[in-house]
Parts: sequence; C-alpha cells; structure tokens
Amino acid sequence: MKKTAIKPVKIIPLGGLEQIGMNITAFEYEDSIIVVDCGLAFPDEEMLGIDLVIPDITYLKENASKVKGLVITHGHEDHIGAIPYTLKELNIPIYATKLTMGLIENKLKEHNLLRTTRRKVVKHGQSINLGCFRIEFIKTNHSISDAAALAIYTPAGVIVHTGDFKIDYTPVFGDAIDLGRFAELGKKGVLALMCDSTNVERTGYTPSEKTVGRTLMHIFEEYEDHRLIVATFASNVDRVQQIINCAYKTKKKVVIEGRSMVNTISTASELGYIKIPDNTLIDIEEMRNYPDNKVVLITTGSQGETMAALSRMANSTHRKVSIMPNDVIIFSSHPIPGNEKAVTKVINELAKKGASIIHQDTHVSGHACQEEIKLIYTLTKPQYAIPVHGEYHHLKRHRDLAISMGVPRDNVLVLQSGDVLSISPDQAKVTGKVPAGGIFVDGFGVGDVGNIVLRDRQLLSQNGLLIVVVTLDRYNGLLLAGPDIVSRGFVYVRENEDLIEDAKEVVTATLEQCARKKITDWTHIKSAIRDDLESVIWKRLKRSPMILPIIMEV
Amino acid sequence: MKKTAIKPVKIIPLGGLEQIGMNITAFEYEDSIIVVDCGLAFPDEEMLGIDLVIPDITYLKENASKVKGLVITHGHEDHIGAIPYTLKELNIPIYATKLTMGLIENKLKEHNLLRTTRRKVVKHGQSINLGCFRIEFIKTNHSISDAAALAIYTPAGVIVHTGDFKIDYTPVFGDAIDLGRFAELGKKGVLALMCDSTNVERTGYTPSEKTVGRTLMHIFEEYEDHRLIVATFASNVDRVQQIINCAYKTKKKVVIEGRSMVNTISTASELGYIKIPDNTLIDIEEMRNYPDNKVVLITTGSQGETMAALSRMANSTHRKVSIMPNDVIIFSSHPIPGNEKAVTKVINELAKKGASIIHQDTHVSGHACQEEIKLIYTLTKPQYAIPVHGEYHHLKRHRDLAISMGVPRDNVLVLQSGDVLSISPDQAKVTGKVPAGGIFVDGFGVGDVGNIVLRDRQLLSQNGLLIVVVTLDRYNGLLLAGPDIVSRGFVYVRENEDLIEDAKEVVTATLEQCARKKITDWTHIKSAIRDDLESVIWKRLKRSPMILPIIMEV
Repeated sequence: MKKTAIKPVKIIPLGGLEQIGMNITAFEYEDSIIVVDCGLAFPDEEMLGIDLVIPDITYLKENASKVKGLVITHGHEDHIGAIPYTLKELNIPIYATKLTMGLIENKLKEHNLLRTTRRKVVKHGQSINLGCFRIEFIKTNHSISDAAALAIYTPAGVIVHTGDFKIDYTPVFGDAIDLGRFAELGKKGVLALMCDSTNVERTGYTPSEKTVGRTLMHIFEEYEDHRLIVATFASNVDRVQQIINCAYKTKKKVVIEGRSMVNTISTASELGYIKIPDNTLIDIEEMRNYPDNKVVLITTGSQGETMAALSRMANSTHRKVSIMPNDVIIFSSHPIPGNEKAVTKVINELAKKGASIIHQDTHVSGHACQEEIKLIYTLTKPQYAIPVHGEYHHLKRHRDLAISMGVPRDNVLVLQSGDVLSISPDQAKVTGKVPAGGIFVDGFGVGDVGNIVLRDRQLLSQNGLLIVVVTLDRYNGLLLAGPDIVSRGFVYVRENEDLIEDAKEVVTATLEQCARKKITDWTHIKSAIRDDLESVIWKRLKRSPMILPIIMEV
Repeated sequence: MKKTAIKPVKIIPLGGLEQIGMNITAFEYEDSIIVVDCGLAFPDEEMLGIDLVIPDITYLKENASKVKGLVITHGHEDHIGAIPYTLKELNIPIYATKLTMGLIENKLKEHNLLRTTRRKVVKHGQSINLGCFRIEFIKTNHSISDAAALAIYTPAGVIVHTGDFKIDYTPVFGDAIDLGRFAELGKKGVLALMCDSTNVERTGYTPSEKTVGRTLMHIFEEYEDHRLIVATFASNVDRVQQIINCAYKTKKKVVIEGRSMVNTISTASELGYIKIPDNTLIDIEEMRNYPDNKVVLITTGSQGETMAALSRMANSTHRKVSIMPNDVIIFSSHPIPGNEKAVTKVINELAKKGASIIHQDTHVSGHACQEEIKLIYTLTKPQYAIPVHGEYHHLKRHRDLAISMGVPRDNVLVLQSGDVLSISPDQAKVTGKVPAGGIFVDGFGVGDVGNIVLRDRQLLSQNGLLIVVVTLDRYNGLLLAGPDIVSRGFVYVRENEDLIEDAKEVVTATLEQCARKKITDWTHIKSAIRDDLESVIWKRLKRSPMILPIIMEV
C-alpha cells in the first residue's frame, strides 16, 4: 500500500547562480515564503555605465502576502546589498546576527528606511519561526565575522544552507564553526544540503585567518623603519584587527582611511567585534605629528577601484596622503576575477613613486576548499545536494564532488536562477520557472536601462557617432539648411575635415536622389542617408560609427 | 693621466616597458641605428574601439638614413606585429631566424610588402654586420620555437639582450639554450645585460615544456573514450606538437581549427618545426567520418577571445563544431592578465552544454623565473643591468634581483619608453628623451583616434547621449522648428516619454530666455541649453549623458 506522499517544499533561487553576487533564494511551502539573503552584483564590463545590479523580485511582489521575512547569512554586499531596493517594494522583517544587522542598519539609514523596517537580531544556536518554517542560525567562519549557516525546518524535511563559509579552527574572533551542530542535524536526517561552491576547484583546506596575522607580523618587523600602507577589504574586520595588533606590537599608530572601511570598522567597534587598544588609532590629520615610520595606514582600494583611497594615493589625487619612496604597501587581498588589470595598474603607479609593494602570501580566502566541503557532506549526509554560490563551472564541479561523497547522481541538483525546485523525501524536480535575473541600477534609475540602451552604449563606445542634420521645406521637401555633420568619438575632426566635407556631399547627393525618386517618407530618407554614408565610411576607414540622421521641417 | 673616454652607445626603448607588448628598442652609435624587435600591443579596456596599438617611430623616421635594419628575437605578436606598419614608413631589411622569418613573411604577404622587403634568415651562432654594429644570434628557449638572444657588439662594448626566454634543458624541439655562449661572453666582458623581467616575481624555475606533454598524455589516457578539444596559443608550436603526439599515441585524428592556428602550424610544418605523423591530420569536414572518441580538435580561443573558434563553439555560433555533453575541453594555457573574465565566461558556457573542462596544470610559462634569471647574470657578469620586458613593478623587482647578483646599485637602469640611455664602460646615464608610446590603430586609421576621441567614447559608453536640435530664423532668431530630442544609450525612450517632453520644455524655456536677453551667439545658446538640461537630468536621474545641442538656421 502506497503511503501518502509528503508535499514538497519549493526552493527558488532568484539570483546568485550563473553570476557571482546577487544571492537571493526563496523557500515556499503552502502560504509561507521566506527569503534567504538579498544581495547585489557589481556590473560586468559590458554593462556600460551601470552602477549596480539587483535581483528581479517580481515573484516575491506577486506573492507579497505570503512573504514572512528576510533571513540573512552574513553582511557582505552580495548578500545584503539589495535589501533597501527590496524593502521599497516589500515591507518585510529582517532577521540576522548582530554584526550583520549593524551593517544592514547602515544601509537602511542611507535609504531612510531604518524607522519603518522591523528587525530582529538572532544569536547563533537560536531559532525563529516564520510561517510554517523554523530557521536555526548556526555558527560558521567566513571573511566577515558573525556569519551563519541556516537549518531550515520545513514540513518536507530539514534543509541546511551553509551560506558563504570556511572552517577555521583558530578564528581571530569568536568561536570556530559549530561542526557539532552539523553532525547532530546529519544524525537526525537532512533532506538537502545547499553548500558554498566558490572554492570547490581548490584541493585541500583554506588556511586559518590567523596565518595571515603571522605573515603580516613578519612584514611589520622586517619593515619596522618604514611607513606601512595596508590595503584590504573594508568588510574583513578580523583582518583589520590583526593589522591593528601588528601595529600595536611594533609601536605604530593606525590611521583608517576610505569611507567604507571607516563605516564598517566603527560599526564593528561599537558592537564589540574589534578591539582597538587605547591610543592606537589616530585621525588622518594627526599623521603629521608622528614620524613616518610610526604610522600604519589601513585603506580601501585593494581591488584597484578607481575612486578608492589607495587609487587616489597612487594617482596623486588623495588630498591627505602622498606616497613616498620609503613607503611599503601591502596588498592583504587577492584580486577578485576581473580586477587583475586594475590592481596591476595601481601597483605600477605606486612602484613608479618608488614605494615597495608586497602582494604575495598576505591573504587567505573566506571560502571552503574541497576537504572542508567534504567534511560538511560527511557530517550532514544529505539526501539531496544543491550546490550554491558559484559560477556555473563551480556548480558543475561541486556536482562531481557531491557524487563522490555518496549523494546519488540524480539527487544532485544544479539549478539556474528562476528554477522552481519542488523537493521532498520522495522526489526532487524542477516544476516551474519564475522571473529571475538582474535589474540594472544607473544613478537613481532602477530598471530604466535595458539591453537596447546597453547595446547603443556598446556601439557608441566602439566607434562613436556621426549626426547628420538637415532642414527640409515642409511643402516641397527642398533642402533649406544643412546637411550639418556633428561627430563624437569618431575621428579628430580638425585633421579630417575632408572626410566631413565628403560626407556632406554624400548626404546632399542622397537627398537629391530621394527628391528625384519622389521619396518623401522620412524613414526612407533617413535609412538612405544611413546606408550611403555607412558604405563610404566603411570603404575609407573600415569603421562603423553609429549614424543618426535627423530631419527638421520648416 | 686621464685616458680618452670611450664614446657611449645609445640605447633607446621606444616601447615595451611600461606596458606589456610593443617591444621595440633602437641602438645608436654615430651614423648607425639598429632596431631590435617591432611589436604591437593589444588595447587596454579603456582604449574603446581600438584594434591595435603600435609604437611611435617618429625618432626612426627622423633618422631614417641611419637605420640599418630590423633584428627580430622571435615570432610573437608583441615582437613582430608592428613590422608592416613600420615598413610602410621605413624600407629597411629584416634579420631573423627561420621560423620567425616565416611568420613575418605571412604578415608581409597580408600587407602586400613581401616583394619590396629585404630579408635575411640568420642561424643561431651566426653574426650579421649592420653599420658599426655586429649582432650575434644565440639559441634560447621560449614558448615559440627559434627564439634568439642577441649579443650586440658595439664600439662601446658588448650588450647582451635575452629577448623573451626560459631555460629548458629538455626542449620539445631543437637544442637547449646555449648557456655556454653566454658564459664565453661573460668571460670576455659584457657591458650591459638587457634581460626578460616577465616572471621575475616568481621564485624557482619554470618547468620544461615537456612536463606539459606528460600531463596531457595522462589526460588523453584518462579520457580515451571522449572527444577532446584542446585550446592553446596559436604560436606555441611545441605545445601543438605534443598534443599531436598524444593524439597519435591514443589513435585519435587531429583537426586544427582557428585561422591563426592553421596559419602558424602550416608555416611551422613547411619549415620543419613540427612533425605530424602521416594520416593523423584530418580536415574539419572529415570529422563526421570518425567516431567522436577518435577525434581531437586543437583550437584557438584559450584567452576567451570573442571571435576565436572556441568562443564560437561555446556560443553555438561555430558552423562546423557543436559542443556535446561528452566532450572534454582542455585549456592548455593560462589567462593573460585582463582576460580572466572572458575565459571564465567561455568556461561557463561550455559547462552549461555539459562538457567537462580541464584548466589546471596544463600549461607552463615561456619566461624565466628568478633562478634562471640569476643564472644568466652569473654567466654574463654584466657591468650594467637594464631590465626589459615587463611592467613597471616587474622592472623594479628585477632591479633588486640584479643588485642581489652583485651589479652595483647605480649600474641598474630602469628606463621608461623614450629615454635615451648613453652607456659606456665609464658611465651610463639618460641623456635625452625622444617621442615614444602607442599609436592607436582603428580599422584602416592609424593615429586618427587620440585621447579626445577616446574620452568621448568613454563618456558615451557610460551615459549615452541626448541630441537637441532646433531650427532658428536667420533674421530674428525665432524658433522655427523643434526642439527635437533624440537620445541613444540613455534611457528607454518609450517608457520615459514624460522625461523627453520635460526636456523639450526646458530647452524651449532656455531659448525664450536667451531671446529675452538678446543672446544671439550660438556658442552661448548652446551652452545655456547644455547647462539647463544637464542640471534637470542630474536632479532627476543622477546621470550625466553627453548633451549635444545643434542649431540650424533657415
């Protein structure tokens, strides 16, 4: 006799799979939806002029009455950055650990949302109830303090979501990851494991954050007689703690520079996540009161970001810090893929000013490597594996790893954004598709720049444009003024006057031909101008500027 | 009594220092100039729409009668790519080893320069005389066969130029680097060593090219039942040889795909630099006659280049090859800095089609690491060290290495492009500066796109543009037609009609105000339109499109 099938829970990744960043996943059971994380992505190079990319939350808006709350795993931009944009559409409560909530509150203040947003700080080990879900926060380690994994108790079974994590037996602040709890969950039975894939291609283990502290200490001792400038991620509070410890031990004062660094460290300090010895921190204005070799600057800009403090120092546009030949600059970071050239450019500029650059062995990752991921599989023994947090090739590699750990091949589910996965102990399959993907933010505009606008920006960026303006007589179509030609981003006009003159002649000829053929439709005239001009320019220069004919009528 | 000072020889790097690529150096003594290498660079991402960057050879043109010839170290684009452009300005003879000359001749054919260019193939160990210089070609190893170092005999002393090199005791083709000759030169006395800096930040030795062959063989054996697609650099003939050897041993047929790969391999094959066993190579059309697991494709596109064969396969736009789930794709390459994201994108697309991707431990560098560079210093014992081939931070690191090898601190000369270094056994100093740097090639245009045009392309790419056209009465300045507004790359016009309407109102108001104030000067009117529109758009959208007012008069 067949027993009644358990109703499946739905897992819907709305972002964060194909592209790094923009992590957001909905979990749905009957009339309850919870949302885990709500991150933004930074634009790819082909997203010209775009400031940010935020997730498409159409599905959540359409089911607004079901959405019980936003549960956040940790305070990185790719997990919290889109919260203000989401709250403007959906007023839902937020649940997060203390530091994570502190960082979220900074954002809410900026967007004037603090007063209207319900918030609850959750401790590791504690659970919250949201609709028919119970969510337990589990201590993990990551490159930002207070990260949590989630055990999501659903009527269909327990889903463990690791968030971004690593295993650090000797963390700089607080406890090691609560492996015991993962083991307990495994004993009781885990329906599905959603595990971080970022470093799944790396063998072995990610070293403890403390190893960086030891390396930094050696560097601080070796370069005791120099001013030190250390660039790292603004959000890596433990790294900043270790740099401050090194400075304290070598009797140097510390200046913190860069807006995001100052914000994060002051929040972390207020909440007790960083301990700064008295008389260690000084204001950037006070630097001049100390000998150079008694100062350490901790700064943003380790990714070569154009507007960050370190780039401004490299370009001599920083108003308060000038790089000197005796400076030693430490990059306590790895370039995020795509930033390599920007970082190298900053390094070259700093080197030209005579500074010494150290950028090797001064960073560890915040993500688990293969052996750590395997440990989590061993402890949780999930029935299903759903690789998360990684690009497609990471997810695929994670799939192989999960299979090697004994998860049946058909029980490893590599999803794409928008997939609706219906999962129960009986079966798991994609049963639908909802809108998902990136919405472009450009200035104040959210979603008003799309693919057509981007395609135009792309065209303009490659070849510039040529505008042809003519004024025609309303009654007889005769040319009253023009053709005038204006170009931008095409050629040096002053050195190519003959080209512009020739172009005018081409347009005049085209107009005459249209008149002879009695063509009066503007669309036709414009496309004739475009075609004729395009072929002349291509023959001459092998280039295709955007050609914009404009007709005025008087 | 002071002995007569030896007249110095001048060394003038015209490119290849600050930026990777575009290697070209002039050596001048009295009425003789020789030029070593003549490479191009590929554009940085901010050089929008630029196809290639070639060196500024103003100095050579101004001294055309002195220039005796072009001496080439090896056949990579960053050493030979600008030859056709230079020959169009200066008809000088070319000296190179056999394979290098074969690759140069391919270029000359494309540019219709083969018949008019004097060429001499030089063997390793052989010398040529050019004016008051003698140049000896010395066997080295690199990621392309037939690379040479140069011993340049000048009246002021011997200068050793390594070109790009590594030390490979077990090369795939031909002999190991002629270390004995470096030692002999060292015994006799070397004035200056100009040595490759590319890998100066890496400790130890670069492994032999043969180690890649062994790794590939393991992969070929492990994936015997799959179709294999191997992507690598078109110019790495030895790598292709090893892939073909693996294919032959595992009884697979080989297809070579991608224009540059086909060209290089056919030249290498004609000249005897690659040995392809009979019945191994098949045409891409013949693939269908063989089972999938009997085929290896060797292809271009290992750097994620959009138009290369592998990218087209990944995007399903390749006309003859479709990626299948059983395919195994091997990247026998490392991403060149700046190409990481493009490579990842291709990998993700291939993974989505179900193919397995191998991109680790399947490549070795063609450049010497620290221990190899030290060996060259030990053998040649140069009086001066002039680090070459690297970005500024590499040159600076090389400086430290040279000092650690006993070169006096003041005798290590880190040059910038355009520096004229006057060097003799008595002293070395920069005594002048000549024009140097990159000339942009865009389509057929050489040098007609400069910084102003690029700045416009940059602006257009970030925010698009807004064109405002009005027709005014010639006599009274009254508005006859318009304002018309055309935008591109700015916002979706259809969804922002009110914005465009508001913009028209702003312009109309501005024109009325100008009329009231009796402003008739077009420059003033245009800038008033620009200012008013700019501030309205910034307030509303926090964006700054390029605003182009155009006034017509009837």
